[in-house]
Amino acid sequence: MKLASVKQGRDGQLVVVNKALTKMASVHFIAPTLQYALDNWERVSAKLEDRYNQLESGSLEGEDYDASMLASPLPRAFQWADGSAYVNHVELVRKARGAQMPETFWTDPLMYQGGCDTFLAPLEDIVMPQDEGFGIDFEAEVAIITGDVPMGVSPTDALDYIRLVMIVNDVSLRGLIPGELAKGFGFFQSKPSSAFSPVCVTPNELGDSFKDGKLHLPLVSHFNGSKFGEPNAGVDMTFHFGELIAHAAKTRALCAGTIIGSGTVSNKLNGEPGKAINAGGAGYSCIAELRMIETIQDGKPSTEFMKFGDSVSIEMFDQQGQSIFGQIAQRVKQSS
Amino acid sequence: MKLASVKQGRDGQLVVVNKALTKMASVHFIAPTLQYALDNWERVSAKLEDRYNQLESGSLEGEDYDASMLASPLPRAFQWADGSAYVNHVELVRKARGAQMPETFWTDPLMYQGGCDTFLAPLEDIVMPQDEGFGIDFEAEVAIITGDVPMGVSPTDALDYIRLVMIVNDVSLRGLIPGELAKGFGFFQSKPSSAFSPVCVTPNELGDSFKDGKLHLPLVSHFNGSKFGEPNAGVDMTFHFGELIAHAAKTRALCAGTIIGSGTVSNKLNGEPGKAINAGGAGYSCIAELRMIETIQDGKPSTEFMKFGDSVSIEMFDQQGQSIFGQIAQRVKQSS
Repeated sequence: MKLASVKQGRDGQLVVVNKALTKMASVHFIAPTLQYALDNWERVSAKLEDRYNQLESGSLEGEDYDASMLASPLPRAFQWADGSAYVNHVELVRKARGAQMPETFWTDPLMYQGGCDTFLAPLEDIVMPQDEGFGIDFEAEVAIITGDVPMGVSPTDALDYIRLVMIVNDVSLRGLIPGELAKGFGFFQSKPSSAFSPVCVTPNELGDSFKDGKLHLPLVSHFNGSKFGEPNAGVDMTFHFGELIAHAAKTRALCAGTIIGSGTVSNKLNGEPGKAINAGGAGYSCIAELRMIETIQDGKPSTEFMKFGDSVSIEMFDQQGQSIFGQIAQRVKQSS
Repeated sequence: MKLASVKQGRDGQLVVVNKALTKMASVHFIAPTLQYALDNWERVSAKLEDRYNQLESGSLEGEDYDASMLASPLPRAFQWADGSAYVNHVELVRKARGAQMPETFWTDPLMYQGGCDTFLAPLEDIVMPQDEGFGIDFEAEVAIITGDVPMGVSPTDALDYIRLVMIVNDVSLRGLIPGELAKGFGFFQSKPSSAFSPVCVTPNELGDSFKDGKLHLPLVSHFNGSKFGEPNAGVDMTFHFGELIAHAAKTRALCAGTIIGSGTVSNKLNGEPGKAINAGGAGYSCIAELRMIETIQDGKPSTEFMKFGDSVSIEMFDQQGQSIFGQIAQRVKQSS
């Protein structure tokens, strides 16, 4: 089934959305919010599924789907842990600055604790006080939402706790990252509010495309209207979602509604860094990666980070060309 | 007023607690949970205050206060950002390993993004799969809970958003910290679930003890029943809570219910590292700090981190000797 949250109050109002993303219908009498549904999944998921099937079959009319009415599926969450499972991405960052990547990065997942109290809506502006110094960038990723995960869960068992799948723009401020990482406490100001896709879906909705804890479809990003990347999220993902969940749950239980991100999707090409779209490659899922390629090739980057007025969109399509999660489409805007 | 959350469901049920911590009374008809109260503070805080005053005056009988019935005030939260405002603590850590501390640490707050989906109850065991390798430690801190904070708030204006004050045991796994910090993404597995005091209070409840964004009272920790530290939280706090809130809100708004921690409370002594309790000093708020002093003095630490069965308690008293927030009292236990 497909679920979304209509903007209402702080936590939205839960709706089911049909497969074609043309209709949606309230389910607030089953579960007022998505967090409520996740908190009570065993009790409510079958009822939500029934309602979804009625909308699909047309026995329930619903209303016209309108993405502008939607918040992120969880407008605020209790846990947002973002992995960096496409180690190729990390290797490239290091390579661009001439640094060696530790071998353990291939066996021990990188993950940062994200802030999750104020997610942006999928069509909401990214509002910042400045652009130049902040180095505003997008990061296109896949993310899953879990049920209650016990501490110490194994990577294989962890797969059973995946309730929903969605995509995300993990907004990043490149200009603030070096200073924060030098302090040794990880990201904080350099990772402002992220935006998730309008719609999240159960794994069964993805059929064979979701297997072995990976989503095997291209993730398509556009920057200022031009295609920027379409790497396949199932390729070069060193750690599957079960491994990422197990990493997060090593020393703590995870609450229902925990969001785990894949990290920036990135594909190699014949064992080498991938090529840009205009060079015939699969492109990239963030500007930083293109700049790294430019730096490796030309000694310096030529593509600038996002300026006020620039736009990014992120979307994923199934094998029939149907948008699965709807579109994240955001513009960078100066705060007044 | 004093507020607490009786264990019930995932988010507890809000109660008011009298000043002497002997009585508590339900306020669920005003606000079912503390998060609800914070989400609707303008509408409900006066009503909660009325109920508190009735409990104080005896016109409302209430029930006997029972800390074992209480969860952390927010059993789970949407944002937990922990500062490290007692720079003395950081300087000591560095000194013990012979490293220089950057001068900017005195002007730019250290802060890490904490996980906040599964806080421990104030009397709940700290359950871990191992003790030796994990290096289990407590960190006694002060914390505040905010209302909705706009992005870019100034440190002075930020003080107006402090709704509640409490204390916290920021459980830390010293054995996992070096590996995580070396990866560059900050703490994750090394900072498992924290536990907060049973009771949180409004700033006015603290009178003159809470001023200039600092809580000017000793924070008392016991380790296995012996007094371990009583440093004054108002002394040597380089960044006050307004500065910590402003730091957290530089590139994002903060949601009502955001918890900001002070970092481990630590006092100098005549410009030098403070002394242990048994050496006549104010002692420490974590074992790591004592071990640093031992390392500086003797070349190696002699105090071990927490073993299974070890206990810690953390409490703060007002000038009349009344416990303000109740006691955090936890034992380390092996997971079965």
